[in-house]
Amino acid sequence: MSGVKAILFDVFGSVVDWRGSLIADLSAWGANAHPDADWTGLVDAWRGAYAPAMNRVRRGEIPWTNLDDLQRASLRELAPKFGLPALRADEIEHINRGWHRLKPWPDSVAGLTRLKTRFIISPLSNGNVSLLVNMAKSAGLPWDLVCATELFQHYKPDPETYLGAAKLLDLAPGEVMMAAAHNYDLHAARALGLKTAFFARPTEYGPHQKQDFVADSDWDVIASDIADLAVRLGAA
Amino acid sequence: MSGVKAILFDVFGSVVDWRGSLIADLSAWGANAHPDADWTGLVDAWRGAYAPAMNRVRRGEIPWTNLDDLQRASLRELAPKFGLPALRADEIEHINRGWHRLKPWPDSVAGLTRLKTRFIISPLSNGNVSLLVNMAKSAGLPWDLVCATELFQHYKPDPETYLGAAKLLDLAPGEVMMAAAHNYDLHAARALGLKTAFFARPTEYGPHQKQDFVADSDWDVIASDIADLAVRLGAA
Repeated sequence: MSGVKAILFDVFGSVVDWRGSLIADLSAWGANAHPDADWTGLVDAWRGAYAPAMNRVRRGEIPWTNLDDLQRASLRELAPKFGLPALRADEIEHINRGWHRLKPWPDSVAGLTRLKTRFIISPLSNGNVSLLVNMAKSAGLPWDLVCATELFQHYKPDPETYLGAAKLLDLAPGEVMMAAAHNYDLHAARALGLKTAFFARPTEYGPHQKQDFVADSDWDVIASDIADLAVRLGAA
Repeated sequence: MSGVKAILFDVFGSVVDWRGSLIADLSAWGANAHPDADWTGLVDAWRGAYAPAMNRVRRGEIPWTNLDDLQRASLRELAPKFGLPALRADEIEHINRGWHRLKPWPDSVAGLTRLKTRFIISPLSNGNVSLLVNMAKSAGLPWDLVCATELFQHYKPDPETYLGAAKLLDLAPGEVMMAAAHNYDLHAARALGLKTAFFARPTEYGPHQKQDFVADSDWDVIASDIADLAVRLGAA
């Protein structure tokens, strides 16, 4: 891996615990005002609407729409089904901004901090720039830059995202490593010549996790988490 | 200034000392191999070619070309006039990458580090993303994100740059402050509703400095340098 100069991280699920964070954040926030809400149900259904919404953009059925806007539309549709029949606009906004407040997995900040001493580190996330910047500020993620697929007006796994990030960094694909807890992301990156690193996040979906318990290919690095990735890449 | 959430910094001359850095870097590097080179003359002429090259892009005379590529073309044209008649391709590349190795002014890192505790801080520079990322790594500039005008395929002072940065951050123009040692940059930013901060860098052009010794308007903040800007914004 001596030729790798930059590591791009998937964020939702790989660096931050979206499910645990959102359930805790929204349950605490809504305890008094919305005692009948089913926050766990809402969060799981909301995450379920995420890929279909992005795929509508990827298939060209709707024009480019960033993740905050996709998620807001999904939230408006789902909230009434989970005990939230009449949210005000400012409440919708606060809930939607929950994605900006996600908490890192316990190893993420320490691992990224070590990797930053040897590599350029950046997200390559379907989250929009403002979401990723606000998250980095609140979670202490020490990115060197914030690369969102929004910059390319394409969502992962479209090739424009991986190749666009490499081009912005003026690096060949083989000088860039994609790091993720999701095998699909690494398959797309490898097909374009990027290096790949996998670490499992087996509790990402809580009791609903169905995949990504283990690496499904011989990725360049298979680590137990981001701190272990730093060790394996000689940055610890 | 209580509504300001992000501060965008001009970089060349405002955060880093391009002239002093390039002259020292290239003189040391070329001492043996190119004893007849006039590095000071080259650096001043090179900087002189910078605005005309960007203006050709801004007027649409040539398609979008990033700063590394514009500077490489200028360097090839100018080098023979300054005692460098036959540079190899790898030497051209090393010299051109001098812009990635620029050193900060003495107050820059401390000032930015303080400002980062209260604000989102980013460059808004005509330097390309890879240049700004490499510079930040070598100079220790603690940006929250790296906003290059390359992202908008427009050079400052085109409005697309200032408004594009605000849009990526999901902020209103009035929630964003442009900070620069160049009055022209602040005039452009203010016209679009951004807040403005000026600090002079009176030695930026060495003996050739002709302007920007003082603020030429009532900018929202007028500071002595970036460390002083942090004090004035309550982030010290």
